Amino acid sequence: MLLLALWRRLGRRSSAAGHVRCFSSAQALPSAEDFAARRREDALLGEIDARYPAFMVWGCNTDVGKTLVSTGMAAALLSPGKSQKSHVLYVKPVQTGFPDDSDARSVTQRIDSLVGRSESIFLSNRTMWLSDEASKKAALTKRSTDSSGSWKNSANSVKSSSSLTCETLWSWCAAVSPHLAAQQEGGGASDDELRKVLRSSLWEFGAGASQTGRSWAFVETAGGVASPAPSGTLQCDLYRPLRLPGILVGDGRLGGISTTLAAYESLLLRGYETICIVIQDMGLGNNQHLSKQLHNRVPVFVIPAVPKNPGDDLAGWFHDTSSTFVQVVSLLEDAYHKRIQRLREMPKKASELLWWPFTQHRLVPEENVTVIDSRSGEFFSVYENKHGRFAQQFDACASWWTQGPDASLQHELAKQIAYAAGRYGHVMFPENVHEPGLRCAELLLQGVGRGWAHRVYISDNGSTATEIALKMALRKYAVDHGFLTNQGDKKPDFKVLALRGSYHGDTLGAMEAQAPSPYTGFSQQPWYSGRGVFLDPPTVCCQNRKWQLRVPERYGTIATELAWDAREDVFALGRDNTELAKIYSSAIEKEIMSSQGSLGGQTIAGLIIEPIIHAAGGMELVDPLFQRILTQQCKCHKIPVIFDEVFTGCWRLGAESAWELLGCKPDIACYAKLLTGGTVPLAATLATQDIFQAFEGASKLDALLHGHSYTAHPVGCSAAVTALEWFKDPSKNPNLLPGTSRLQEQWDPELVAEISSRSSVERVISLGTLMALELRSTSSSQKGYSSLLSSGVVKELRQELGIYTRPLGNVVYFMCGPLTKPSVCSSLLRRMLKVLE
Amino acid sequence: MLLLALWRRLGRRSSAAGHVRCFSSAQALPSAEDFAARRREDALLGEIDARYPAFMVWGCNTDVGKTLVSTGMAAALLSPGKSQKSHVLYVKPVQTGFPDDSDARSVTQRIDSLVGRSESIFLSNRTMWLSDEASKKAALTKRSTDSSGSWKNSANSVKSSSSLTCETLWSWCAAVSPHLAAQQEGGGASDDELRKVLRSSLWEFGAGASQTGRSWAFVETAGGVASPAPSGTLQCDLYRPLRLPGILVGDGRLGGISTTLAAYESLLLRGYETICIVIQDMGLGNNQHLSKQLHNRVPVFVIPAVPKNPGDDLAGWFHDTSSTFVQVVSLLEDAYHKRIQRLREMPKKASELLWWPFTQHRLVPEENVTVIDSRSGEFFSVYENKHGRFAQQFDACASWWTQGPDASLQHELAKQIAYAAGRYGHVMFPENVHEPGLRCAELLLQGVGRGWAHRVYISDNGSTATEIALKMALRKYAVDHGFLTNQGDKKPDFKVLALRGSYHGDTLGAMEAQAPSPYTGFSQQPWYSGRGVFLDPPTVCCQNRKWQLRVPERYGTIATELAWDAREDVFALGRDNTELAKIYSSAIEKEIMSSQGSLGGQTIAGLIIEPIIHAAGGMELVDPLFQRILTQQCKCHKIPVIFDEVFTGCWRLGAESAWELLGCKPDIACYAKLLTGGTVPLAATLATQDIFQAFEGASKLDALLHGHSYTAHPVGCSAAVTALEWFKDPSKNPNLLPGTSRLQEQWDPELVAEISSRSSVERVISLGTLMALELRSTSSSQKGYSSLLSSGVVKELRQELGIYTRPLGNVVYFMCGPLTKPSVCSSLLRRMLKVLE
Repeated sequence: MLLLALWRRLGRRSSAAGHVRCFSSAQALPSAEDFAARRREDALLGEIDARYPAFMVWGCNTDVGKTLVSTGMAAALLSPGKSQKSHVLYVKPVQTGFPDDSDARSVTQRIDSLVGRSESIFLSNRTMWLSDEASKKAALTKRSTDSSGSWKNSANSVKSSSSLTCETLWSWCAAVSPHLAAQQEGGGASDDELRKVLRSSLWEFGAGASQTGRSWAFVETAGGVASPAPSGTLQCDLYRPLRLPGILVGDGRLGGISTTLAAYESLLLRGYETICIVIQDMGLGNNQHLSKQLHNRVPVFVIPAVPKNPGDDLAGWFHDTSSTFVQVVSLLEDAYHKRIQRLREMPKKASELLWWPFTQHRLVPEENVTVIDSRSGEFFSVYENKHGRFAQQFDACASWWTQGPDASLQHELAKQIAYAAGRYGHVMFPENVHEPGLRCAELLLQGVGRGWAHRVYISDNGSTATEIALKMALRKYAVDHGFLTNQGDKKPDFKVLALRGSYHGDTLGAMEAQAPSPYTGFSQQPWYSGRGVFLDPPTVCCQNRKWQLRVPERYGTIATELAWDAREDVFALGRDNTELAKIYSSAIEKEIMSSQGSLGGQTIAGLIIEPIIHAAGGMELVDPLFQRILTQQCKCHKIPVIFDEVFTGCWRLGAESAWELLGCKPDIACYAKLLTGGTVPLAATLATQDIFQAFEGASKLDALLHGHSYTAHPVGCSAAVTALEWFKDPSKNPNLLPGTSRLQEQWDPELVAEISSRSSVERVISLGTLMALELRSTSSSQKGYSSLLSSGVVKELRQELGIYTRPLGNVVYFMCGPLTKPSVCSSLLRRMLKVLE
Repeated sequence: MLLLALWRRLGRRSSAAGHVRCFSSAQALPSAEDFAARRREDALLGEIDARYPAFMVWGCNTDVGKTLVSTGMAAALLSPGKSQKSHVLYVKPVQTGFPDDSDARSVTQRIDSLVGRSESIFLSNRTMWLSDEASKKAALTKRSTDSSGSWKNSANSVKSSSSLTCETLWSWCAAVSPHLAAQQEGGGASDDELRKVLRSSLWEFGAGASQTGRSWAFVETAGGVASPAPSGTLQCDLYRPLRLPGILVGDGRLGGISTTLAAYESLLLRGYETICIVIQDMGLGNNQHLSKQLHNRVPVFVIPAVPKNPGDDLAGWFHDTSSTFVQVVSLLEDAYHKRIQRLREMPKKASELLWWPFTQHRLVPEENVTVIDSRSGEFFSVYENKHGRFAQQFDACASWWTQGPDASLQHELAKQIAYAAGRYGHVMFPENVHEPGLRCAELLLQGVGRGWAHRVYISDNGSTATEIALKMALRKYAVDHGFLTNQGDKKPDFKVLALRGSYHGDTLGAMEAQAPSPYTGFSQQPWYSGRGVFLDPPTVCCQNRKWQLRVPERYGTIATELAWDAREDVFALGRDNTELAKIYSSAIEKEIMSSQGSLGGQTIAGLIIEPIIHAAGGMELVDPLFQRILTQQCKCHKIPVIFDEVFTGCWRLGAESAWELLGCKPDIACYAKLLTGGTVPLAATLATQDIFQAFEGASKLDALLHGHSYTAHPVGCSAAVTALEWFKDPSKNPNLLPGTSRLQEQWDPELVAEISSRSSVERVISLGTLMALELRSTSSSQKGYSSLLSSGVVKELRQELGIYTRPLGNVVYFMCGPLTKPSVCSSLLRRMLKVLE
């Protein structure tokens, strides 16, 4: 081992806990400052170099030979005689038992002896951080493992030489699980830090080496797939945001089929791709059975059993396995190229085959199509062909307002969805009961329905939930006002009272409850007739640090001067006794009375509103006082009240339900979007017992004859149960204000106020998980749904600042989840301020 | 071991492969005939006794101490001094290494020494089947393991005594994985047989022992959770239809956190409940970390490490662990009671809180509510409180026509859904692309859309898919016929041509395309106006073994005589040249021409049909000739043609798409239900490029402004990709006719003909996965949607014959999946014949 003798330790510095080693060399190995900088790097902007193949090396258990497999693959890549040179990065993010055990050293030494003798090769091995214990022991045993980079056959230059770069990121002395070692010896890495440093290693390696030959990276985990990382997080969870494809080292022994498959499934459940499995041959043919179980889609490679003689340098074993590792590497290379090729062709294929909703395809050139490779919590991983990378982007459109999970909840949802699919698939609901369906109903009645609702009607999406709600309301009105018994030949013309700017879905029934708009025109829906009496609502917004009331002219001028310093004042119930309340009240009363006809005439048979926020209508905050009075007055007239909480419900506005903010209760309410935590479609229409009873009768024909095939599908109900419980559990949602059912302020009021004072900003809204701003337009063509004013802002946020936004006309909004940390929100707001400048 | 000396072998017989041991005793141990009968038992009628707790004992790997844990639990239950006696059944379904290894013997011996000395206890240990090798070796070593039941302290009677019954169902000699042992030594059990015999053991034990004290059963698996069974099926898949809750024996060693969690997740992914985890303490604190990862929801018990000294009889170890096992057993008992209590209360809670679709709640008394505990492939597991059991029922309503999977596909779907949820959760679709969405679109265009469709619009359910299709058709018609450019003040009154009896969904737009019916009346949907020109279609059905045409009067009398011997003749394209074709053609032409008005008048702007089968409309087979001519003539008039294949598509009728059976292609088609293989809601509207281009333009406002929050949700798209590929893969779907894209006949034509000849049967339809019959009614009140004529038939099928059906008025149907074996279908048909008698 000539190489070992050449290794030098060049520097060493203490950090708060443990030591950082730094080096200087031709390849500019990272300094302690670099390392510290890596740890501090902006968490929002993670990226993975996609220009070279990088793989995780997982084990189904400890001691199954991960490092030997890594070595075998490195050897196959670095073996002599290749026309093209190879650069291999081997990273061991977490090493315990150091310095006695050092997988990176082991790889370096073996490659040295296997390849170095016959080939010019640049070898380096470095350890970024050691615990004090590990550091002391390394000094004591004089067993350094670091090298600034050593030349074998130094006649060759860097350009023409292959290289192996081995890095250990964090090392502890105790030969135990990393979370115990970190507990015992201190120091250690948070998950964020560990990922940041790993990303940096991969990025720097790619930047330095990619021009001079084939580059490859292997990231070898510690223990089994679900062994804890230093923080205690499972490794399969820790590395998930990077989502590197992997090689799973399985077990060829008795019981090994089970542990290998179980490990494979744990990776699958977290959205990892496993390219192949490698197992040692213990004479049991485990590989054949594994292949069969995996439907031959994941190749299983067999290597001879590793000799157990401690003195064996394994030269013979590596010789025997070399052709297999050549095959493994060839498969990996193939998988890498196929993956990248597919990612590259996806925008074109998408443009050719898909028909996107709400999208004018002519306005979306191929290069503007975003390829989303995965999501982890609030972040997309987006493939950017131009930059050859996977970039992390904050999903600030909350994927059409559905998203709530952080990475932990996403994994929990995946688990519970998997369980429901495994247990039920889907099963018939009417006249039946299953646990997730019943539990979902119970939680909704205890939560958003508490104090008013008695029945839960489950359907598929917001639009169907609304159609069901409308059928309920109209029936109830017909029963209460004698339209069923006393109908005669002529049907009454039932209308709903609704607000201009509200949106309830795109199926015809839901559309009928919306005021005419570009969505409802003849060219979009020739059958739309607008079965509503539509009122113009007063709204509130933040302008120049003040919350201003904006009242339509018809209500007179009295109210136009109103403004508040704090948003809470807008919601104050004390406003019920103001002059404005009287104005609202008489205007509404007039509207109801003038619209109520007799049999055959126009009749207001229901009220439908989106409480507090008109979302699709441009993120307008409707004056809560107005909606409260509207609700109360309809109830007085026995007009059933529907709250469409599809957008506003389930913590979207910082409370479980928006009616809590409004201070009054509906007869019927619709929930969807966040209901399943952002996983699959499911909707619920809640109703009072009075509403339910309007459908009771002797005949089946009296029942509500509406349903969808997957009514109360267990997968969706399980997701809903998981999300509903998680969001309100203080041990899981740090944003819950102790002892209340409200979230803490996620958008820093000072930053929001700052944004509201910018000259380019017309108005700002922030409430719960929503922060929206309207850009100031200078001409009428810049307003409305088809406005393109926001496109520059959106482009900069997406391409430069890692924030995926979608504009609503000239409104740009950020939407986080109920679990998103305020610090992340502040980071988003600061970026917005930057863009506005 | 006094007991061993007392054991007697009473009998032994050869069977085809291996030996069956039989015994006679006071407890009537099973004879060889009994055993053979158990293996033959009707696969449709599986049941699990729910009156006593029964648990699986799983291991996260081999050699983690499952048998010791089983023994510990048995000891806790049988320990001296209990006021109530206990009866414990220990079943080892599969034993290898026999007779040297016999876990059942080990349990018996240890309980004998731990408990038997101080307590009157009845002990028995028996082996049901041995391979020849195992049998020979047992004879050679004189190491019998069988006992007819032995008394300790025989002064006591059966009634007042506790008992331990140990059973090994199948034994092989080689100490290898069961699938290898079965390969080497022959014999062995199919999965069906193994489950049947296990069910019988559990059932007989419950019947015999339950009156005299607490009964408990433990079923100990072999190896790890995913170790192969004799057939090669993984054990976690093999035992899934029973879905007993389980105890997982984890691993306390280094790496054990990972293997334990991975095994737990493999069980979860298959819908099992794990009540607790038990691990040996190896000083690493694995239990604490496991508890944290499992959010403390699954208790983790720690027991001392098992001494490795082979001579140790473990008496000390069992003494040390006894209090822990008392806790374990107490937790299990609690879990059992909570589970049963919940199952019992579910019907009441469901009746109080849920609002079922299409259900008159007053007509569903609590005792009629079906509690579905799980599904496995085509079978529900239903909890029947009256009988204290979980009964297996064939889901013959295919859960509102959504179901396609057998048990293998169900598991694969669960895996792929889990992967998608782990990888994506949900991500934004418009202007973006993700792999499952794109792949789903590609497969649809290569499959149901091949040869005609170019674009895929993804939405949530059949109803939304139809609304989208209608918007597409109406726009296309408006563009083609100049209604957009030349509209003036007055809007044309767009209608669709549709067939009476067809159904397209319950949202208003879909309802408008349906003829008036009880579903569309004022009391159900006051906004319904019926925007269709509705034709009465000719239909075909099997009566008295003949396929008869039924033509509405308006088409004249010529056709009323037509009948065919074989169903294929009905679909023959040669019929296009018949006299009947001319009659249809002129009638249709007249209808179209008379309905086409000018601007402002009534205009047929689209055709929408359910090809071949009107499903919700009473399972009517519409004459394919009629629909073919209708389609062709609309195309001649440039009226866009929509096929609503929500029910008929994706193999429901024995072909991938019903247009293949019809022999003509649409411009737009809708798919849902079977699209995801029966897991979660997802729908696709496919369209030609011509249709797509009607929405292209310079403005966003020209685009199809329709969408749903979870458009193309990755979970649903992944399920669709899995199902679409699986159904057409000959290696996975044995029903595919080689070299064709058709399924073999699943409903035996002879049995169908037989049913059609019964006097109580009006007509029969069988096609693809559907078999339906209409009961003959004697009065008009027995017809239609609210008819109760079928209720007796349905009740008998459900309660006596293990078939879960739902009637459609006086139509009773069986619906299987594209993978269901014809033998299962025949079994269903024979039961139907029995009921009809």
